[in-house]
Parts: sequence; C-alpha cells; structure tokens
Amino acid sequence: MNALIDFYFDFSSPYGYLASRKIDSLAAKHGRSVNWRPVLLGVIFKTTGGAPLTQLPLKGDYSKRDFARSARFHGVTDFTMPSMFPIASQAPARILLWAKAQDPVLGSRIAHALYRAYFVDNRDISNPDIAADVAAETGVDRAAARAAVDDPSIKDSLKREVDAAIAAGVFGSPFVIVDGEPFWGIDRFDQVDRWLTTGGF
Amino acid sequence: MNALIDFYFDFSSPYGYLASRKIDSLAAKHGRSVNWRPVLLGVIFKTTGGAPLTQLPLKGDYSKRDFARSARFHGVTDFTMPSMFPIASQAPARILLWAKAQDPVLGSRIAHALYRAYFVDNRDISNPDIAADVAAETGVDRAAARAAVDDPSIKDSLKREVDAAIAAGVFGSPFVIVDGEPFWGIDRFDQVDRWLTTGGF
Repeated sequence: MNALIDFYFDFSSPYGYLASRKIDSLAAKHGRSVNWRPVLLGVIFKTTGGAPLTQLPLKGDYSKRDFARSARFHGVTDFTMPSMFPIASQAPARILLWAKAQDPVLGSRIAHALYRAYFVDNRDISNPDIAADVAAETGVDRAAARAAVDDPSIKDSLKREVDAAIAAGVFGSPFVIVDGEPFWGIDRFDQVDRWLTTGGF
Repeated sequence: MNALIDFYFDFSSPYGYLASRKIDSLAAKHGRSVNWRPVLLGVIFKTTGGAPLTQLPLKGDYSKRDFARSARFHGVTDFTMPSMFPIASQAPARILLWAKAQDPVLGSRIAHALYRAYFVDNRDISNPDIAADVAAETGVDRAAARAAVDDPSIKDSLKREVDAAIAAGVFGSPFVIVDGEPFWGIDRFDQVDRWLTTGGF
C-alpha cells in the first residue's frame, strides 16, 4: 500500500500549478511519494476533443477568474497568470523526464522550479533555453538539460508517457491516480485525502 | 447582504442533484435563501459549444465513476444513476417556474421532489405526465401542474430564464452566483461557504 501517487500535469496548466503546490504535503501526510508525470494536453485533446479552458465561450472568462480565486482559496499567494498562455510544454516536460531518470527527488525539485518560473515569474518555459536556465538554477548542468530537449530518446520517452496517460484515462490536468482510482482536478484533492485515509469509499 | 443565492441547475444534471441536497443548508448557515433557477443545458451548450459530460471520450467514463463517488463523498447515499440519461428537462423546469410564481417555498419543495424522482426513483421526469404526477405528490393540483408544461407564458418564462442565465455567464450545472460572484460546480461549495463567511476573498 505504499505505492507512488501518480500526479499527471501539464506545465501550461494553472490548476496543475496550484495542485503542484499541494500534492507533496498531501502525499506525505499518508506516507506516500509522488510520481511527477508530465503530459501534453494538446496531444490528449486530439483524442478527447477537449480544448483549452480559456478559449471557450463563457467558460473562458469564468476560468480566468477561478484560477486566481482558487489560488487565493488554496493559499497559493504567488500565482500570477502568465502573459503568454497557453504555451507548448514539450521543453519543460522533457527536462523533467531527463532529471527523473537520474533521480526522482531531483525531478520533483526541477518540476517545482519550472512551474514556479512560469506561474510566478512569468518566464516562457516553452523556450528550451529558458527551461534549461531554470533547471540549471536548481543545480543541474545547463548544457545537459538543454541537450535533453532535443534528445530523440527523451522525445520518445515523453511520447510514451503521454500515450500511457491516455491509456490510463487521463484527459485533463491535474489528474491523480491513487491505487488505481482516478481523480481529476485540484477540487478532488479532498476526495484523494479521504481515499488515502480510508482506503476507498 | 441578505440577497438570495442564485442556484442554477438542470434537472438532468447529476452534479446538480448532489448540489440540490447541499444548497439549502449551506444557504441557511449564512442566513440566506435559495432562488431555484432551472436552466436547459442543451440550449446553453449551443452557445458555449459544450456537450454532455458522459458522451465525451475518457471524460465520459470518468464522470460516471465520479458521480457515484462524489455522491458517497458528500453523503448523498440515495443517488442512483437513472437508466435514461440525459433527458430533456423542459417539463420539470416549467412546472418549477409555475410553482415558484405562486410561492418560492413551494417551488423549492417541488424542485427537490422532481430531482428525487429522477435521481433516486429512476422516474422519467422528461415526460410531462410523470413530472405532473411528482408535483401532485407534493400536494399541488395535478391538472394545473400538467397544464403548466404546455402554457405559452410559462414556456416564454423558461426561455427568458435560460437567456438570463447565459447573460449572467452560466455555462454548466450546478452554478451558483452569490452577490455577483460566480461559482461552477458542487466542488466550489467550499469556496461559496468561505465567500459567504468572509464577504469575499
């Protein structure tokens, strides 16, 4: 029962960012660790017919208001809607996979740094050079991080990850799977918490 | 500050039903009353490009699982996914508007009865005769309730209600507006509660 919690997210997802600020403590509370699994919503939406929230009539305006209000509600006081949104998230996703392959803890540190760069400091992490800068600020080798973005084996690895996510039923961000049970959205973290406490309900 | 809480919902919406079981006590906790406002998601989706959750790839399977799990999470133990789903909700919506025009408290009682008929007792409330039966079980005149479904002025009233909902930014069910602030989903009821407690955050 000490399996990892699969935490699927897109680096361009505001709710994913909010969830990234909560998932470690939620997992730790239950003696679990987090598997940080970057996905590409653009690819997933081709399968599901989904679309970026902010581009939908009515829902778009609401979602921008709800991002900021949900950030305040969850105590994530540094959330700032980036000026470029949404962005392609291949570069940060590949750097994360590269880092995770070396060390899951390093992966988690880099994931937090990349998310923070985009949703706090308004840095365009879709740019491989900027994403590599951010990774380097956590202490890894910048050139190696930058090279990971163009590494064919890491590109393949990301493709496989996205396919695996779709196969597991992931259609949005954040998406958590705990012991086989799927939960979509930071607004299901209360259910995740109870699920981990009770073993299911 | 004792304004009504606008509670928008579609009688065919499972999350709307769950919310209907929570909204009265949430409002009462803060000394508020609820304005039960039926909408037609089918009409709203024509404006927004939305679609019934259960018909979407991946999201469809997830949503059916989440309806039942969310019901258990919120202690709504009688929730039963109806065998016919989704249904057209003009008949129950018109009967509710007819009842509300006489007495808001009667409206609330009839709204609960109609939702319960569909999501607990698996009765097809899209059928005007069945919807009128359900209304009659709350004590109103059956013939008058049945006549409301075909009454041109009540049809117009429902059209105006749906147009007003869209103008207010309503794109889903349940949808709550408190003192001008919009909240979509039963999973925002924790934010509604805090909003009502603090006057905004």
